[in-house]
Amino acid sequence: MKVGGVHYRTVWMEGPAVRMINQHLIPHRFEIIDLPTHRDTAEAIRTMIVRGAGAIGAAAGYGMAQVALEAPDDERFSQYVAQGAETLRQTRPTAQDLFYAIDRVLGGIVAASSPVAAREEAVAIAGRLADENAAAGEAIGRLGADLLADGARVLTHCNAGWLAFVDWGSALAPIYMAARQGKRLFVYADETRPRCQGARLTAWELCGEGIPHAIIADNAAGHLMRRGQVDAVIVGSDRIAANGDVANKIGTYEKAVVAHENGVPFYVAAPESTIDWESPDGDAIPIEERSEDEVLYVEGLSDAGELCRVRLGPAETRALNPAFDVTPARYVTAIITQRGIAAPSELSRWAPPSR
Amino acid sequence: MKVGGVHYRTVWMEGPAVRMINQHLIPHRFEIIDLPTHRDTAEAIRTMIVRGAGAIGAAAGYGMAQVALEAPDDERFSQYVAQGAETLRQTRPTAQDLFYAIDRVLGGIVAASSPVAAREEAVAIAGRLADENAAAGEAIGRLGADLLADGARVLTHCNAGWLAFVDWGSALAPIYMAARQGKRLFVYADETRPRCQGARLTAWELCGEGIPHAIIADNAAGHLMRRGQVDAVIVGSDRIAANGDVANKIGTYEKAVVAHENGVPFYVAAPESTIDWESPDGDAIPIEERSEDEVLYVEGLSDAGELCRVRLGPAETRALNPAFDVTPARYVTAIITQRGIAAPSELSRWAPPSR
Repeated sequence: MKVGGVHYRTVWMEGPAVRMINQHLIPHRFEIIDLPTHRDTAEAIRTMIVRGAGAIGAAAGYGMAQVALEAPDDERFSQYVAQGAETLRQTRPTAQDLFYAIDRVLGGIVAASSPVAAREEAVAIAGRLADENAAAGEAIGRLGADLLADGARVLTHCNAGWLAFVDWGSALAPIYMAARQGKRLFVYADETRPRCQGARLTAWELCGEGIPHAIIADNAAGHLMRRGQVDAVIVGSDRIAANGDVANKIGTYEKAVVAHENGVPFYVAAPESTIDWESPDGDAIPIEERSEDEVLYVEGLSDAGELCRVRLGPAETRALNPAFDVTPARYVTAIITQRGIAAPSELSRWAPPSR
Repeated sequence: MKVGGVHYRTVWMEGPAVRMINQHLIPHRFEIIDLPTHRDTAEAIRTMIVRGAGAIGAAAGYGMAQVALEAPDDERFSQYVAQGAETLRQTRPTAQDLFYAIDRVLGGIVAASSPVAAREEAVAIAGRLADENAAAGEAIGRLGADLLADGARVLTHCNAGWLAFVDWGSALAPIYMAARQGKRLFVYADETRPRCQGARLTAWELCGEGIPHAIIADNAAGHLMRRGQVDAVIVGSDRIAANGDVANKIGTYEKAVVAHENGVPFYVAAPESTIDWESPDGDAIPIEERSEDEVLYVEGLSDAGELCRVRLGPAETRALNPAFDVTPARYVTAIITQRGIAAPSELSRWAPPSR
């Protein structure tokens, strides 16, 4: 999507370096960060300089290409590749796209006849993964836009926009596409504590696309739904189990239950690569616990224009910080992928033939 | 309750001045603020230097006593009193205790035979209101403690502790009482965006009482309930309608729906004065909309030890900020007042005889 009139992707490769938008600084500053080695890329994923299911998948794919480029040209090649893949795997536990991308590039490396061929193949696959991700977002946008009527008021949680993918996004793609079709929409962006991806990233994206919106405290979503002020909820997903259970940013479960209670359609938008056919249900999905400092502190721009953090609670108080939750399939109206729109119970029609 | 070994109430009167704990500064600093006139007291209520249903009721009662003390000793007395009452009424729209306290003191003033007698009566009633509020909290604590088993993990939203009342509190009183009975409890304190009363005030109170606890993002409450990690939810209330619908801090409704969905008991603790017999149901309760800056900014302590605010979102983004929501009675397991524990459908047994 465009930033100040220039088209950007969230993450890309230039020579041996991975480059990405530094999402720590959005919306206050727009900076591109250079990651010379796969270790730098892994660290950027871990520290959430890049975040969002599809974007960390693409970053991990490029990271695997870096691994191949860096690996020594001798008998140590395979071991270096295996270690590099492991380093990237250890960055974040929940998002399925991360493992999907690592495995895709790794498969190409392993199948190649030589280190030289493996490197070419790795870079090519990583690029294809990113292109596929962007194309999936655009297709999700086209399919999902049909679910949004002119005048619709849509609630979204966290950021599943283009910053969370390579381009377009998942949950926000239908909104962008519907807006380009001339539909007038209004978006409620859940702030999404603790990291405030809604207030920071979704709001920034919506400003860029000129779509009317308001940030709300996560607590206000249910109140608006009960009052009949929300026509649809659309969220992304970090991993979808085979039975249609959906892992996504903490808080998604509450929104889904309340939407269900109020008869508001609850859509999950994600590329097909987010479906984990090896997880029979949501209980099989590992839930990342992150640092309690994400809850105890809030980062933002001071009145003096400096990025800083403030502590909310008493110095001696601790916090718990589960980063994701699981929404059981029964609360999900439909799942939107690039292949179509399906009820969670119909997901198996997209299962790979091997199953 | 005690602060550094000294017993404090949240708000009290010394001569013609109202004194209160400045809740803007908790947990980072403990300061008492002096309010020489009823206009200062009204402003302190409006700007939430004092907040919480019972505490603003007590503050408004003392504010009415100030009105009587300030009123000129001639034919303008009645008009001054009426204007003062109106100034106090206009501070916050949702909390029933505010109107209850103003009306109680006003009734005493109007019934008095002279301005001198009216002043004495106003000060006496305001003091009684505060005493009743503290006693109600203690009684709620004693009754509610029986609902909490040894080892219970209790979730609470916002701050309905002693800072929200004159002493003891409503939702936290059963926790304090159960802890003094030797029960080992663990409290999840919802952060409670936008103003973070859970992270700031509830956590500070729990530190003071030495009760094990953790702050969680509001988004995490549902996840913990679904995982079976919450044994009970207790919240306070700003106004309870005659049918048992409960107005409370924004986000309460979501917690109640998710508790109901997961079979977790959901208790509302409040003094009887919180029940508004004139509101047949929750739709009759006015919901305060507060400044969008409460959502767009977060206040806290910088790493340099200074109180400051940071902005989360883009400069051009707006916010919506409903401060309360209504939880329909069907999600409420029981209401705890100083008179007993009742299902919402049984509330009418406490209705005044005039009804």
